[in-house]
Amino acid sequence: MKPLSEMSLAVFGPGLLGGSLLLDARLHGVGELRVWGRREESLAQVRQRGLADVASTDAAAVAEGADLLVLCVPVGGMKALAEDIVQAKLGVDPVVTDVGSVKAAVVAGAGAVCRRAGLVFVGSHPMAGAETAGLGAARAGLFQGAACILTPEGDTDPAALAKVENFWQALGCRTAQMEAAHHDALVARISHLPHLAAVAATLASFKPDASMAQFAAGGLRDTTRVASGSPGMWREILLENRRAILPALADLHRATGELLEILEKADEDSLLARLEEAQQLRATRYS
Amino acid sequence: MKPLSEMSLAVFGPGLLGGSLLLDARLHGVGELRVWGRREESLAQVRQRGLADVASTDAAAVAEGADLLVLCVPVGGMKALAEDIVQAKLGVDPVVTDVGSVKAAVVAGAGAVCRRAGLVFVGSHPMAGAETAGLGAARAGLFQGAACILTPEGDTDPAALAKVENFWQALGCRTAQMEAAHHDALVARISHLPHLAAVAATLASFKPDASMAQFAAGGLRDTTRVASGSPGMWREILLENRRAILPALADLHRATGELLEILEKADEDSLLARLEEAQQLRATRYS
Repeated sequence: MKPLSEMSLAVFGPGLLGGSLLLDARLHGVGELRVWGRREESLAQVRQRGLADVASTDAAAVAEGADLLVLCVPVGGMKALAEDIVQAKLGVDPVVTDVGSVKAAVVAGAGAVCRRAGLVFVGSHPMAGAETAGLGAARAGLFQGAACILTPEGDTDPAALAKVENFWQALGCRTAQMEAAHHDALVARISHLPHLAAVAATLASFKPDASMAQFAAGGLRDTTRVASGSPGMWREILLENRRAILPALADLHRATGELLEILEKADEDSLLARLEEAQQLRATRYS
Repeated sequence: MKPLSEMSLAVFGPGLLGGSLLLDARLHGVGELRVWGRREESLAQVRQRGLADVASTDAAAVAEGADLLVLCVPVGGMKALAEDIVQAKLGVDPVVTDVGSVKAAVVAGAGAVCRRAGLVFVGSHPMAGAETAGLGAARAGLFQGAACILTPEGDTDPAALAKVENFWQALGCRTAQMEAAHHDALVARISHLPHLAAVAATLASFKPDASMAQFAAGGLRDTTRVASGSPGMWREILLENRRAILPALADLHRATGELLEILEKADEDSLLARLEEAQQLRATRYS
């Protein structure tokens, strides 16, 4: 496998994740950085920050000769982007991956386009992000310590999988592999559900009188933090993964209903049992 | 008004809040620190950390000669503690306050006991805390920048109120005054509701397979953080303030139900509207 210093990395979409990827790649001495953006203005910013050796709005031109191609656009735009990329004259053994937060749809969309063109696609989901978006929010080290789930298929070339895995590990990710459908059920519980819980908590806490929040301590701030995320981006994620989210959201609705019933009855024992259960479940991950 | 260096401060209950209060009081050069604890072991710790000039399990003995008495015990224990304290021979113009997170019940309980004994009581709620409890979690500066709500009654002596307000401000709190019932409705929305939302999110996210959480990023951690709080303490808070919490919790349950319905229908416009509304409401407090 090529060392990073000889690798040509193509990043499609220099937003929060793509931009952070470029910053890390530069720090790690990746040989060549090629960047595709939809708008000239964002490419101008990328050039200004010294994050691209090649930057263009032409996806096929950016793909040319790249070893590793990372799709960092919203999930809904990945398939069309893959269709442009497979037109390019690519290097030897190139691998395409992505950073999308849902995987079954991406593997069936962009992944299938690549496969039909004889190109290896390995889905990736680095579990890093922020409630802010765009290149301005990008930062080096964003992926350090984050989990990154890879979703190879049964017949994925092991060398291609290793290339993608090594790349994420070089950026500080803990990698894991699972089926795309399993990934989607997992993120429904650990990412999409907390987001919806934060949205519901924000609506219920702030709506009657938002000025009350001036008195709040850290509890309100943290419980609702992710509700400041981009509405457009999150609408897409939630709709893309809605089948996996629905049973999780039904569980959340049931849990709020159960707590309401317990409090209506002032049922001390059940209340303590739910509070203890939540504390113990959370302690399995967080100390 | 006496300067802090001449003040005798009595703290009842050296837990997270009482202990942090003692640490701050020591740093600010409060003249005398008197500490009551239920158990000898916790008093031994207080003495060992140099946080008490007088430490005893006899509440009346600790109260003797104090200028400002702060009740830092669970809300359910405050009235009984006040009954012990009013037996003491107190100083000139002593004022009793507390740190309880509900106020109507405290004013009607411990407050009324003090009033009947001719002692001024002013309810306080410094909005600071942590998901950890006990003296071991106490730290100096815990109150810095926190809101502290005071709940004087119509006939509360202005000098007594000023004494309590100045004390909290000296510790770095932003103070505000409101009726006890208004306080309770407020904290139901901005503190108790986020707690219940975090508990519900923890149950729904972790329960099917807690091992999934190893892949989580900051969203799950922050949304569920307060669910690690002491189950016993939170049971008491939630039951003490249940009348004010019930309508807020009903709103949360409705919000989760509405999100579920929107996602079931894949209603893109309504989903975006709810996400935008939450983002905008949150932006009124957090940037």
